[in-house]
Amino acid sequence: MIRLFTMLQRSLFSRSALLVQTAPFENLLYSKNTHAASCIHRSLGSVTIPPPACMLRPLEAPLRYLFGPGPSNVPPRVLAAGGRPIIGHLHPEMYEIMNDIKKGIQYAFQTKNNMTIAMSGSGHTAMECAVFNTVEPGESVVVAVNGIWGERVAEIAERMGARVHRMVKAPGGYYSNEEIEQTLAKHKPVLFFLTHGESSAGLVHPVDGIGDICLRHNCLFLVDSVASLGGAPLFMDEQKIDILYTGSQKALNAPPGTAPISFNERACKKMFNRKTKPVSYLLDMTHLSNYWGCDGKTARIYHHTGPVSGFFSLRESLSILAEKGLENSWRQHKEVAEYLWKGLEDLGLKLFIKDKDLRLPCVTTISIPQGYNWRELLTYIMKHHQMEMTGGLGPSVGMVLRVGLMGYNCNKANADLALAALADALKVCPKSKA
Amino acid sequence: MIRLFTMLQRSLFSRSALLVQTAPFENLLYSKNTHAASCIHRSLGSVTIPPPACMLRPLEAPLRYLFGPGPSNVPPRVLAAGGRPIIGHLHPEMYEIMNDIKKGIQYAFQTKNNMTIAMSGSGHTAMECAVFNTVEPGESVVVAVNGIWGERVAEIAERMGARVHRMVKAPGGYYSNEEIEQTLAKHKPVLFFLTHGESSAGLVHPVDGIGDICLRHNCLFLVDSVASLGGAPLFMDEQKIDILYTGSQKALNAPPGTAPISFNERACKKMFNRKTKPVSYLLDMTHLSNYWGCDGKTARIYHHTGPVSGFFSLRESLSILAEKGLENSWRQHKEVAEYLWKGLEDLGLKLFIKDKDLRLPCVTTISIPQGYNWRELLTYIMKHHQMEMTGGLGPSVGMVLRVGLMGYNCNKANADLALAALADALKVCPKSKA
Repeated sequence: MIRLFTMLQRSLFSRSALLVQTAPFENLLYSKNTHAASCIHRSLGSVTIPPPACMLRPLEAPLRYLFGPGPSNVPPRVLAAGGRPIIGHLHPEMYEIMNDIKKGIQYAFQTKNNMTIAMSGSGHTAMECAVFNTVEPGESVVVAVNGIWGERVAEIAERMGARVHRMVKAPGGYYSNEEIEQTLAKHKPVLFFLTHGESSAGLVHPVDGIGDICLRHNCLFLVDSVASLGGAPLFMDEQKIDILYTGSQKALNAPPGTAPISFNERACKKMFNRKTKPVSYLLDMTHLSNYWGCDGKTARIYHHTGPVSGFFSLRESLSILAEKGLENSWRQHKEVAEYLWKGLEDLGLKLFIKDKDLRLPCVTTISIPQGYNWRELLTYIMKHHQMEMTGGLGPSVGMVLRVGLMGYNCNKANADLALAALADALKVCPKSKA
Repeated sequence: MIRLFTMLQRSLFSRSALLVQTAPFENLLYSKNTHAASCIHRSLGSVTIPPPACMLRPLEAPLRYLFGPGPSNVPPRVLAAGGRPIIGHLHPEMYEIMNDIKKGIQYAFQTKNNMTIAMSGSGHTAMECAVFNTVEPGESVVVAVNGIWGERVAEIAERMGARVHRMVKAPGGYYSNEEIEQTLAKHKPVLFFLTHGESSAGLVHPVDGIGDICLRHNCLFLVDSVASLGGAPLFMDEQKIDILYTGSQKALNAPPGTAPISFNERACKKMFNRKTKPVSYLLDMTHLSNYWGCDGKTARIYHHTGPVSGFFSLRESLSILAEKGLENSWRQHKEVAEYLWKGLEDLGLKLFIKDKDLRLPCVTTISIPQGYNWRELLTYIMKHHQMEMTGGLGPSVGMVLRVGLMGYNCNKANADLALAALADALKVCPKSKA
């Protein structure tokens, strides 16, 4: 053990350590006259493309307030977890960590689903995984499109050969349970997709009752909670959500690269009784459920190499949420969001979502103030306040500015910083006469 | 800026910090009698699934010598890079880091290809990306299967609707250029797959001349170098490899979760002149090339959120390789491997690959010694030496033991540790009378 410490120690100042380590080889390399060297040299071939100069410069990344729709700032605790020496992806200790992550996700999702794992990828990976595994080519899918995420799911489902029916509304629009029921009755889909936290519009969509409608129409209810999990109340089991996924880099404050997802019994029944294999081997839940020890088998067969450091970070972020408590986290996001909304209105800004109850507490959308160039405002805030806020995304581009205060970033002090930056930008940036 | 430091500082001891931060909310939560509290409480709903006890315990991960086929130990420098505060995936500074990574990969691959990026996932993601983008349903693909990786590619290609023709050999087997040419002539594939570093068998496959054969037969040459990059000479451009990918967690010593991949002009011509869209939106190179600034467009449109910390680590590991120099790295792996092979033979062990020139310097395969239970040997070494060595993988299970000394792990001191652990296991573990 001590030797391993020493091994790590040895190259703590490892630029120099490396030079020491490679010294004998360099001597060989430079003493081209010696027979040995030229032999080795010839047998190894010689490179024609030299080391790029940029790679000899150290990594540079500025400190930023990440007050956009995500990624949000990562707490030191989570950064530290991600920076720990790794272990193997198939070590027993890794399985323990994955079991912990599974329990942490079950808590965050409020579900007892056994089929609960983290994807080795971003929210989009979970999105494709959900569609690829639960839908077969030729089957009907209904997608609620009221921002970018529905558009993405529709595209994904079309590519794998599903018959996709879109329910399209402008950003900020939402769907009544009646509308949803009528559409399901008409298209008889196997899957209905809805975004809980529509971050491109700043809308949190009501979910109550939709699970029952899907159940009546023998259709799976797939919900995207990437931008809402931990920030707005969501109860997977009570609300009869069949498939739920989220991302790691929003209210969970882990780096991007992992994505919790959970399937209930109904979803498992559908996805494990397919006629065809899912088109992606990488995202095949038959293999992923085994990797995560969810398939009841004792042996875990190698499928892919999971992002060990990413799982360390994700576990830590789920641990922080468990310590804090979901209700505290929801309440914190609600209080800070209301404080931010009030401050924005005091600045004379108009909130894009009129109805308070439909506003996503994690990401607030502001109608672009009359006469201002939104890009100028954002560039000014980034340059002078080291703060990220963003414009719209997909269909909401040019309609809104977006401010996200999620998880670790979610407190009134940060809301004040965001308000001060906006006030400054509105004062300094030129207003067109138009 | 100072405020951000303070923000980070504030929760350096953030378990306590969090409690402080959430105190007001907790008071609300616990004073259920107050009207305000009960209102908020009701409106937020209450959780039925409590925080799991395991999530209130700190993350535990032992220090290990990762001397298996990967992941290998991550140098402190790379861990530190991955543990840095993150920035946004679409910030200009992130684009700079991605440009550096691109140049670092071009050097490691010895290619001038503009279409050079890192996948947001493991080597399997790169594998699926290569097949999904360059092959259309119904097209013919030839896969050299002499271990697990060919099997995986064949499965991936079959799932997306390709006509797959396997060239099957037992683990350790390899292909003559004549065999390859005959098979290509027979099946007229659009893609031929070969594994350069077959880690399940410990074989490094000769590559010279195959690119020309593929060119003559108007077929793309796809090579997997996950287990060989940086450890065995490979020249993408000179050897006319059309598509090359690798992983981050082998000789590059970054944590798993990113995968460099490069496409040459021929590959781009094929993949950007498809009749059908690739089945995966997530892996569509049309979008990924834009995200990586390889498509000549000035605007980068949001596709997915890349693993920012993973890219930090990958840049650092490519930087270490550039500082050290490819030829030094190749020479180091060759020398240390030969030292290990000698030591293994001195222990009376037989190497699985007889021909030295065909042995993968990164991962050495040992024939399982007569009369020993290979699982017992590995379990003993893990338990008493905190050292990972592994058995076979896929078709080589039960045939070999595998020892990997890659990149940061690749030095004679570590070879001695591995040899001592093996000697100890061979002495202590019971030998069956059989």
